[in-house]
Amino acid sequence: MKNSFGNNITVTIFGESHGEYIGAVLDGIPSGIAVDTDFIKKQLDKRRPHGTISTSRAEEDNFKIISGLNGGITCGTPLCILVENSNIRSKDYENTILKPRPSHADYSLFCKYGQEGILPGGGHSSGRITVALVAVGAIALSVLKSKGIFIGTHIKQIGDIKDREFADLTSDIDNLNDMKFAVLDEKAKEKMMEKINSAKSQNDSIGGVLETVISGLPAGVGEPWFDSLEGVISHAVFSVPGVKGIEFGAGFSVGLMQGSEANDEFFYENGEVRTKTNNSGGILGGISNGQPVVFRTALKPTPTISKEQDTVDLKEKINAKLLATGRHDPCIVHRARVVTDSVTALAVLDMLCEKYGRDGLK
Amino acid sequence: MKNSFGNNITVTIFGESHGEYIGAVLDGIPSGIAVDTDFIKKQLDKRRPHGTISTSRAEEDNFKIISGLNGGITCGTPLCILVENSNIRSKDYENTILKPRPSHADYSLFCKYGQEGILPGGGHSSGRITVALVAVGAIALSVLKSKGIFIGTHIKQIGDIKDREFADLTSDIDNLNDMKFAVLDEKAKEKMMEKINSAKSQNDSIGGVLETVISGLPAGVGEPWFDSLEGVISHAVFSVPGVKGIEFGAGFSVGLMQGSEANDEFFYENGEVRTKTNNSGGILGGISNGQPVVFRTALKPTPTISKEQDTVDLKEKINAKLLATGRHDPCIVHRARVVTDSVTALAVLDMLCEKYGRDGLK
Amino acid sequence: MKNSFGNNITVTIFGESHGEYIGAVLDGIPSGIAVDTDFIKKQLDKRRPHGTISTSRAEEDNFKIISGLNGGITCGTPLCILVENSNIRSKDYENTILKPRPSHADYSLFCKYGQEGILPGGGHSSGRITVALVAVGAIALSVLKSKGIFIGTHIKQIGDIKDREFADLTSDIDNLNDMKFAVLDEKAKEKMMEKINSAKSQNDSIGGVLETVISGLPAGVGEPWFDSLEGVISHAVFSVPGVKGIEFGAGFSVGLMQGSEANDEFFYENGEVRTKTNNSGGILGGISNGQPVVFRTALKPTPTISKEQDTVDLKEKINAKLLATGRHDPCIVHRARVVTDSVTALAVLDMLCEKYGRDGLK
Amino acid sequence: MKNSFGNNITVTIFGESHGEYIGAVLDGIPSGIAVDTDFIKKQLDKRRPHGTISTSRAEEDNFKIISGLNGGITCGTPLCILVENSNIRSKDYENTILKPRPSHADYSLFCKYGQEGILPGGGHSSGRITVALVAVGAIALSVLKSKGIFIGTHIKQIGDIKDREFADLTSDIDNLNDMKFAVLDEKAKEKMMEKINSAKSQNDSIGGVLETVISGLPAGVGEPWFDSLEGVISHAVFSVPGVKGIEFGAGFSVGLMQGSEANDEFFYENGEVRTKTNNSGGILGGISNGQPVVFRTALKPTPTISKEQDTVDLKEKINAKLLATGRHDPCIVHRARVVTDSVTALAVLDMLCEKYGRDGLK
Repeated sequence: MKNSFGNNITVTIFGESHGEYIGAVLDGIPSGIAVDTDFIKKQLDKRRPHGTISTSRAEEDNFKIISGLNGGITCGTPLCILVENSNIRSKDYENTILKPRPSHADYSLFCKYGQEGILPGGGHSSGRITVALVAVGAIALSVLKSKGIFIGTHIKQIGDIKDREFADLTSDIDNLNDMKFAVLDEKAKEKMMEKINSAKSQNDSIGGVLETVISGLPAGVGEPWFDSLEGVISHAVFSVPGVKGIEFGAGFSVGLMQGSEANDEFFYENGEVRTKTNNSGGILGGISNGQPVVFRTALKPTPTISKEQDTVDLKEKINAKLLATGRHDPCIVHRARVVTDSVTALAVLDMLCEKYGRDGLK
Repeated sequence: MKNSFGNNITVTIFGESHGEYIGAVLDGIPSGIAVDTDFIKKQLDKRRPHGTISTSRAEEDNFKIISGLNGGITCGTPLCILVENSNIRSKDYENTILKPRPSHADYSLFCKYGQEGILPGGGHSSGRITVALVAVGAIALSVLKSKGIFIGTHIKQIGDIKDREFADLTSDIDNLNDMKFAVLDEKAKEKMMEKINSAKSQNDSIGGVLETVISGLPAGVGEPWFDSLEGVISHAVFSVPGVKGIEFGAGFSVGLMQGSEANDEFFYENGEVRTKTNNSGGILGGISNGQPVVFRTALKPTPTISKEQDTVDLKEKINAKLLATGRHDPCIVHRARVVTDSVTALAVLDMLCEKYGRDGLK
Repeated sequence: MKNSFGNNITVTIFGESHGEYIGAVLDGIPSGIAVDTDFIKKQLDKRRPHGTISTSRAEEDNFKIISGLNGGITCGTPLCILVENSNIRSKDYENTILKPRPSHADYSLFCKYGQEGILPGGGHSSGRITVALVAVGAIALSVLKSKGIFIGTHIKQIGDIKDREFADLTSDIDNLNDMKFAVLDEKAKEKMMEKINSAKSQNDSIGGVLETVISGLPAGVGEPWFDSLEGVISHAVFSVPGVKGIEFGAGFSVGLMQGSEANDEFFYENGEVRTKTNNSGGILGGISNGQPVVFRTALKPTPTISKEQDTVDLKEKINAKLLATGRHDPCIVHRARVVTDSVTALAVLDMLCEKYGRDGLK
Repeated sequence: MKNSFGNNITVTIFGESHGEYIGAVLDGIPSGIAVDTDFIKKQLDKRRPHGTISTSRAEEDNFKIISGLNGGITCGTPLCILVENSNIRSKDYENTILKPRPSHADYSLFCKYGQEGILPGGGHSSGRITVALVAVGAIALSVLKSKGIFIGTHIKQIGDIKDREFADLTSDIDNLNDMKFAVLDEKAKEKMMEKINSAKSQNDSIGGVLETVISGLPAGVGEPWFDSLEGVISHAVFSVPGVKGIEFGAGFSVGLMQGSEANDEFFYENGEVRTKTNNSGGILGGISNGQPVVFRTALKPTPTISKEQDTVDLKEKINAKLLATGRHDPCIVHRARVVTDSVTALAVLDMLCEKYGRDGLK
C-alpha cells in the first residue's frame, strides 16, 4: 500500500488536480451507517476557498458516492466517492512544467516518476486531492461522533498572530465545527485575515499553526511500539499538504522542562482517573489515557507565490527564473484545518477498530 | 501488525524489561550482507548508561543472533536477535505496581490490557526494549552505509543549553558517530552535563531536543500521500520513548514565515540540482529531493523522578502518593540518540526497498 | 485492507452489480509504462457473454481511466479505472431479495452485513465486479510481458469433457490468448459447448476446471513461509467467483504418489538447470524454480439456475421456494478464464516487486 | 511482511533447522488469556516423529515463552516462543550442500538467496520450522475453543488407503484431537501404517490427503474479495510443507457437477438457517455461512528419499547423482496434520478479530 492508509478501515486516494475526478475508496466501514451527504457538503465547503484570502479557482466540489451505499446506508462494502474537477486551466502551467516551483513537489516528483510525473498543477500531489480526504473523512467523523468522540481544530497561529487557548472543550469544538475560518477568538480572526491579506498584497504567502483536539477517546487506544497513537496520527497528518511538524501536548516545550514540571499527576474525579495537567497530550507510552488528545501542526506558507524566484530548467539543465502564474492561496492554514480533522478521524477510527471490531463499531 | 514496522523490511520487537530476553526479528534483509557484530556492540554501547548522568542499572547487553545468519553473513531469512536482561530488580516496583507513575505508560497500559498489562519496570513499554531496536538498527545502518547513506544525530538541546548547528555534514556525522554523548560543540557538552547533574541533584529530570540528519539519500524516495517520507519517519520516531514532537527542516518556524522566505530556490551545482536553503528538510511533497533530510525530535524529561508525586491507587480507587524507588535516568536525551538513529535507519531502508527491490539492495 | 490485494502493487476494487460503475484502483505501478487500452478492451471482451452459452445480459463494458495516466503513459500515481454498468434490471431480483439463492453469497452477505448487504444481483459480490479485475489485470499482464513473463489459461474440463494437455508452451499460450473460448483442442471445444447447452436446456448449469501456466517467471520468486508463491497465488485466485479448489503441478494426485515418482530430478540443459518432470508446478519450498508455474482451479456450476429450489424466507423466518428469474450463465468457466489470468498477473507482479523494486520494473 | 501472517493477530516465524532455536512471535493476542503449556506440549507431541513411520531424528521440542506472559496469563504484548533445536547432525548434509535434493527447496532457495541461502537440513525452509507454528497455533486453538470454535483434521488418505467420512462432528473432532495418528477409522490406520512402512522399506516415501473441519465458526466471517475465507485459509495452509493443493467442500468434484446437484439448499432447523448439503464447505462468496468449514489438502511424498537420484552440482555446473543420507520421514502426512490445524487456527483467529475486535475476543 502506498496511497492508502489504515489496517482495518482503509482509505485509498486517487486522482490528479486537472483530471476529471478526484476520488477515494473507504473500505471496512461497517454496514448500517447512515451517510449524511449534507455533512459531507458542509465539510467540503470548509475546505473551499474563502473570499479574498484564497485562490480564485472556483471549485464546485460536486461529488457522488458510486459504491458501498444502499439507499443512503452503508452496506459494508467499499465506498467510493468521486469529486468532480471543474474550472481546469492547465494552460497556466504549461510553459513552466519543467521549471520546478521552489518548495513545491514538482522536482521531487520528477526525480521519483520522471517527466511523466510532472502534471499541470501538481498532478496527484496537488492540494486539490484533499477534497477526497475531506469527503471520506466526513464519514469517519460521523462514525466517531456516534461513539462520543469529537474532533476539532482551530487556527492556533497565522504568522505571529495567535488564537486563544482551548477553554470549555465541548462548546469550543462545537463552535469551531460551525466556522469556515476556525478560531476561538473572533478578534484573532480579524488580525489573521489582515496578516493573510498583507502577504497577498506583497505577492507573497504566510504560514501558520493548527491545533487539534480529540475529546471522548477512550483510554487504551494505541500500541506501545510503532503503532503508537502519536505515530499513527502523525503518519496520517503529514499527508496534509504543507505540514512540516507535529507536536503532542506540551510538544517541543518539553525540551525545556524538568520532570516535576512536565509530569501529569493523577487524581480521581467522580470515580474517574484524570490528570491535573495534560502535557502528555492525552497519550502515554503510545496509548490514550482518557484525557483529550491534543496536537499542533506547523504549516508552511504556500510555496506558489507571484514573485520571481530562482529555479532550474530541467530540460535545458540550466538555471532559470520562474514567475508563477497559476491561481493560488496566500495562505492554506484555514483550509488545511478540515483536512487535518479528516485524516485525524480516519486514523483514530482505524485504531478504534482494533479494540471494538466491526461489530463493536456498528 | 502492531509491534512491527515496515512493508518490505520489517522489524518486530518483543520482550519486557524484567524478562529473560528482549528481542527483535528483522525480516526482508537481502542475503549476502556481512553483519558486523562489533558495530552492533558499539551501537548498544552508545545506548548504555553513561556515568553519573544515567541510571545505575548496569546492563550488559549481551546479545546473540539466533537465526538468519550463515557464518556471519545474512542468508535472506528472518534474523532474530536476543539481548539478555541481567541485573533485574523487580522488587523496586512491586509495592507500587497499581500506583501508576505520572506521565509513564503504567496507567494507559492498565486501561488497554488490564492488570496483566502492568509489569515491573514498565514491562513491554520500558525503555529497555529499545536495545532490540538498536541492535537491528545497527544492521540497517550498515546496509544504508553501503549505499552511501549516512545518518547522524546530535543533542541539539538539553533544557536551555544548545549545541551548534551542523556545518560540514560528512565530518560532523562521522564525529557524532564516534561519541557516546553526541554534540558538535564540546563546550555545549559540559554545560549540558551540568544541567543534567543539576536536575539529578534535585531528584528531578530534564528534557531536550535531538536533531537528526540523513545524508546521501537519493531524490525520489517517499510517496505523495500517506507513505510520505515525513509520515513514515515520524511513525517510526514516535516509538523512541519520550518523543512528543517532530519537525522537518524549518519545522514549527514555518508558521512565522512568508513564502518568499521559506521557499528553497533551486540552482545547478556541478550538474546537480540543489537548493540554496533547506527549510524543507530535504522533503518536498512527501518525497526526498536529494538535499539532506533534517528533523528534530522533542524528548520529555524522564517521568520517573525521586520526588513524591500525586497519583491514584487503582486497586483501592483512591488518590495516593508515589515516591518512585526504581533506578532511573535524570535525562534520556543522550541515550535516545542512538535509538533515533536506529528507527530512522529502519524506516529509510524499508522505503528504499520500494525503489530498489531486494536485488537492488544487495 | 479487505477488498485490496498486494503489498507493493496493490489493487482495490469497489462497486456493485447494479450501481453506476464498477471500479478498481491500481497503486504502485511504475511510471513510464504505456497503457494499451485496446488490450484492456480485448481482455474485457473475453470476459463478456458468448452467444448462447452465456447470459443474455448484454454488458458494454465501456471503461475510462480517470487517474494515473499522462497521455496514455502511467505517471506512477494510483490508476483508477471505472467500468460503466448498463442494462440494469433490478426488478428481476426485487421479489426474492430476502430469499437467498442456494450456494450464492446472498445468505452469507446477509449474515455479515445485515439486510443492507443484500443488493439486487449480488451487489458487491456479483461476478460483474470482475470487470474491474480484468481491466487492471490487463495492465499487469502487459508489464509482465515486457519482462518476458507470459500467462495463459485453458479450459481443462467442462463436466467430464477434457481438453488436451499443454504441449509447446509458447505457441499454446499465444493461441489461447487469442481465443474467447480458450481450449487447446478445437474438438474439445465443440463437446464442451454441447455440454453447456445441454445443461442450459435443462434449466441447469455446469462446472469445470481451468488450468493456468506462467512461463518465463524467474527462479527465486516467493517466500519460504506464508508468502509462498502458492499461498499468494491461491489467495488471489479464490477471488475468482466460483473457485472451490486450487492445485499446483501434480496437485491432488501427489497423494497417491511415492517420492521416487513425484520428485522432479534436475539436469543441466544449455547451461541452465531444469527438471525432467514438473510435478512441483514450478514451485519448491514456496519459491519459483524457473520451470513453468502450473495450477488448476475448480469452478462450481453457476448457482443461479431456473429450477425451483428450496430456500428460506429471512423476513418471515420460514422455509420457502425460489425460482430464480434473473439472467444468468449456464456455465462461467470460459468467462472465469480471463479473470484467473488477471488476478494471477496481479499476484505475480506484486511478488516480482519484492525482487526488482520499482526501478527494476520500469 | 514476508515470514509473517495476519493483520490483527500476526505470527512471525524465524529460525533454521540446525540453529539453536526455532521461534515465533505472536502479536495481537488480547491480554488475560491463560496459556496452557500442557496443551502446547500435547500439540508439539502430535508433530513429533512416531515410531518406525517417522525420522529417527529425536526432537525434544523443549520450549520457553520469553515474552508476553505475566504469570501464565497473556499481558497483551507480543508473545515470543523459542523451541530448542537439539540432536543436530549437520555433517549429514555437508557433502551434498550444492547438490540440490530433487523436489526439495534447496534449488529455489539457492536461486533466491544465493549460496548463503542453502543451509544444512533445509535451513529456514526445513519442516523443523513448523514447531514454531504448532506452538503458537496451540494458543490460537485455545482462544478459538473459548469462543466455541473447534478445529480437527484427519488423515483422509495415504496413497490409495482412505479413512471414513466425518459423521458426528463433535465427537469426531474430540477423538481426533486425542490421537497422534489421526484417523476416524482405526482399521484405516493399520492399512495406512502398512503403506508407509512399505514405502520406507523401498527407501521411498508416500503422499496423502488431509481433511480439516472447522465447527462453530459464526456466519459472516470473511470478505467478498481477496480476503475471502478460502483465500486467507489457503494462503496460510500452503505454508504447511509439502501441500500442493487445497479444495473446499466438494472441491474439484464441482467441475463435474450440475448446479442442481452442487447447490446447497437452505432450510430452517430450530430457528436456524442450515443447508441440506455442504458442497460449499461452509463458505459462500468468500464468507462463512454457519455450516462447518471443510477443506482438504494434498501432501506430496517427502522429497528426501534414500534412493539415488539425478541432480546437478551447482558448483561445478554439471549433472550429478545424489544419495540422500540425512534422516527423514517416509511420510509426513500424519505429522503435517497438527501443523494444518495450527495455521488454520491462526488464519481463522485473525479473521475473527475483524468482527469482534480485541475487546470482543477477550
